Amino acid sequence: MALFVQKFGGTSVGTTERIEAVAEKVCGFRNAGHDVVVVVSAMSGETNRLIGLASEIMEEPDPREMDVLVSTGEQVTMSLLSMALQKRGCDARSYTGSQVRILTDNMHTKARIKQIDEQRMRADLNAGRVVVVAGFQGVDEDGNITTLGRGGSDTTAVALAATLKADECQIYTDVDGVYTTDPRVVDSARRLERITFEEMMEMASLGSKVLQIRAVEFAGKYNVPLRVLSSFEEGEGTLITFEENIAMEQPVVSGIAFNRDEAKVTISGVPDTPGSALRILKPVSEANIGVDMIVQNVGEDNRTAFTFTVHRNDFKRAKDVLQRVSDELGAHGVSGDTKIAKVSIVGVGMRSHAGVATKMFEALSVEGINIQMISTSEIKISVVIDEKYLELAVRALHSVFELDKPGVEETL
Amino acid sequence: MALFVQKFGGTSVGTTERIEAVAEKVCGFRNAGHDVVVVVSAMSGETNRLIGLASEIMEEPDPREMDVLVSTGEQVTMSLLSMALQKRGCDARSYTGSQVRILTDNMHTKARIKQIDEQRMRADLNAGRVVVVAGFQGVDEDGNITTLGRGGSDTTAVALAATLKADECQIYTDVDGVYTTDPRVVDSARRLERITFEEMMEMASLGSKVLQIRAVEFAGKYNVPLRVLSSFEEGEGTLITFEENIAMEQPVVSGIAFNRDEAKVTISGVPDTPGSALRILKPVSEANIGVDMIVQNVGEDNRTAFTFTVHRNDFKRAKDVLQRVSDELGAHGVSGDTKIAKVSIVGVGMRSHAGVATKMFEALSVEGINIQMISTSEIKISVVIDEKYLELAVRALHSVFELDKPGVEETL
Repeated sequence: MALFVQKFGGTSVGTTERIEAVAEKVCGFRNAGHDVVVVVSAMSGETNRLIGLASEIMEEPDPREMDVLVSTGEQVTMSLLSMALQKRGCDARSYTGSQVRILTDNMHTKARIKQIDEQRMRADLNAGRVVVVAGFQGVDEDGNITTLGRGGSDTTAVALAATLKADECQIYTDVDGVYTTDPRVVDSARRLERITFEEMMEMASLGSKVLQIRAVEFAGKYNVPLRVLSSFEEGEGTLITFEENIAMEQPVVSGIAFNRDEAKVTISGVPDTPGSALRILKPVSEANIGVDMIVQNVGEDNRTAFTFTVHRNDFKRAKDVLQRVSDELGAHGVSGDTKIAKVSIVGVGMRSHAGVATKMFEALSVEGINIQMISTSEIKISVVIDEKYLELAVRALHSVFELDKPGVEETL
Repeated sequence: MALFVQKFGGTSVGTTERIEAVAEKVCGFRNAGHDVVVVVSAMSGETNRLIGLASEIMEEPDPREMDVLVSTGEQVTMSLLSMALQKRGCDARSYTGSQVRILTDNMHTKARIKQIDEQRMRADLNAGRVVVVAGFQGVDEDGNITTLGRGGSDTTAVALAATLKADECQIYTDVDGVYTTDPRVVDSARRLERITFEEMMEMASLGSKVLQIRAVEFAGKYNVPLRVLSSFEEGEGTLITFEENIAMEQPVVSGIAFNRDEAKVTISGVPDTPGSALRILKPVSEANIGVDMIVQNVGEDNRTAFTFTVHRNDFKRAKDVLQRVSDELGAHGVSGDTKIAKVSIVGVGMRSHAGVATKMFEALSVEGINIQMISTSEIKISVVIDEKYLELAVRALHSVFELDKPGVEETL
């Protein structure tokens, strides 16, 4: 008999019919003798409806009042799910973030969880009840309602699983697991039975939007076994686990991530003096523009070029900021390109395997794809290429790293 | 500089535009130097939408979960109103019933307020903030969300006014005050400048649905001056006050109330023995049927007849229950009529004025209206008549008691 924390997102609870289907699933676990804590999001569309109401009043409403407003979304879902559970003879009780005392800091709209009081949930579980908790929300020390930011329901689920020492935290979504890459791009993309936390974090931050990255970090920190699975289909999903658990023979590369949300900006002919990197990046960060990849090339005449990628929405602002910096530094000028894509190969295996980068670059070269930027970490290699080659690159890499073939542990 | 508690109902906050209009009004008070605590209902239609969602899942949901569900309605309004106030430079903060600790018993969907913690509101008022509180909801000792039942926002407002010792509790509605009778029935119906609590209670229970009766009771108990006024028009409204404040020369009758929601049931030929009233009414109340007027007539042969009125929705059930009772008691039988109306004259003045009843009965007789039942209290006389004569009766009484002419204090 295990204890599961199960999280159902907005589309999984988008209508009362779907809420009934979720109740059916949860009752199945309960009737099999397991303890279940359910975390729910707002019904899909509801959060946007609420934000819409606020924007009718003003453009940038007080964050405290925004949290009061949008936190009602999960509160509606949790009560409806409890009713649907009770209808099936499954005793249940719903709680807001405030009621189970999910204590956060007071950073409204992006609060961080500090502590959770498990007493109330434990008492309900002991009494045989399913506990239904509102995702995405908490309460600060002064009793103000806070929210964790979009997608924060995943974080709530993991934090509850950590607090309750759950056997597994199950994230139910509209996909049935984590894939070697996007199945819409590569037909032979395969669901992974397992993936390590580190790989998952790279995959998530690179745009495989299955899980919120904070939730994955949190799960890693507290050793919470995390499983991603489908609300709508049966299946084992993908277990996100620790490197130690993975067979030695596992494939070198686990997945191919990509995104087309970025643009690149280059400032060239920068006098190569100490502190120039700082003088370039500081105004960018002061303008609240997030930077992803940063590459510095040595150039001629004691001058260097900096290239970095930003979100496409920030492209114009980033260029303007850099133009000012370029004038100040006496650099040659600023150029940029929005038609780029980033493709990454991810895998803990590449740490101990030489030649992964070579194999990647060779595959791209065979297809005639020019690499514009390269950036590497312990478990991933990212390249920036022309956007039009994105699908071609992903398919070539998926094939050359044999991701369409089952992994070792799956063939045993 | 006064402290006002102002309550705005569902239609007054039915759209973001109307919420802005409310903010405008509240800011006006604040800018005039007054302290303001605002109590809001759910946006009109929202509570029904939420109840609709629940009824898609099951017919009689758990009352605890219903309270969790419907309490989100006011939470949405209060945050939107706070935003609209802030937009106007009026610092504001919103609180749920739980956050200001409106402590209630645990009778979900019809909880009663036990205590309110004023500390938090007082601190905000001292800091120059408008305090916005969700109406209709509270929290029990275990931290469960409770609601006070439909219309409970009025009760919240009065309870807050009592706790904070407010100078006035202002109930903003879609009418501009309490009238001598329904203006849709009598053209010359007049807004009253003042009405006593006792009169108001009789008016409210008799169907003048301006204020929830519990709120009026509550206001009377705690000496809270209560004013009913329009959200949409300027005006003084009607002040609900204590008898002592009213000039001696005030009119005998203050208003004419009526309703057509009732039906009457008669059980006749009941053996006139001790306990027969109990044996008749006990099964009715056990069937959860509310009884309004009760009249017992002495008849022939040591037998009596009981007639009482019930809500029309309960008519059939009441008849069935009484048929069983009639058989058990050996009474002659049960009859009933749904086509009745109740008309009442209300006024504290009638206590000390003889002949009010005579005047009433005479006016009805002149119009050829037969009186089927009579019931009297200290400050009202009610009669049941054929439904088709309702408007005629109300107009005749309104005229004979000179309610179309201004009262003494208004002519000074």
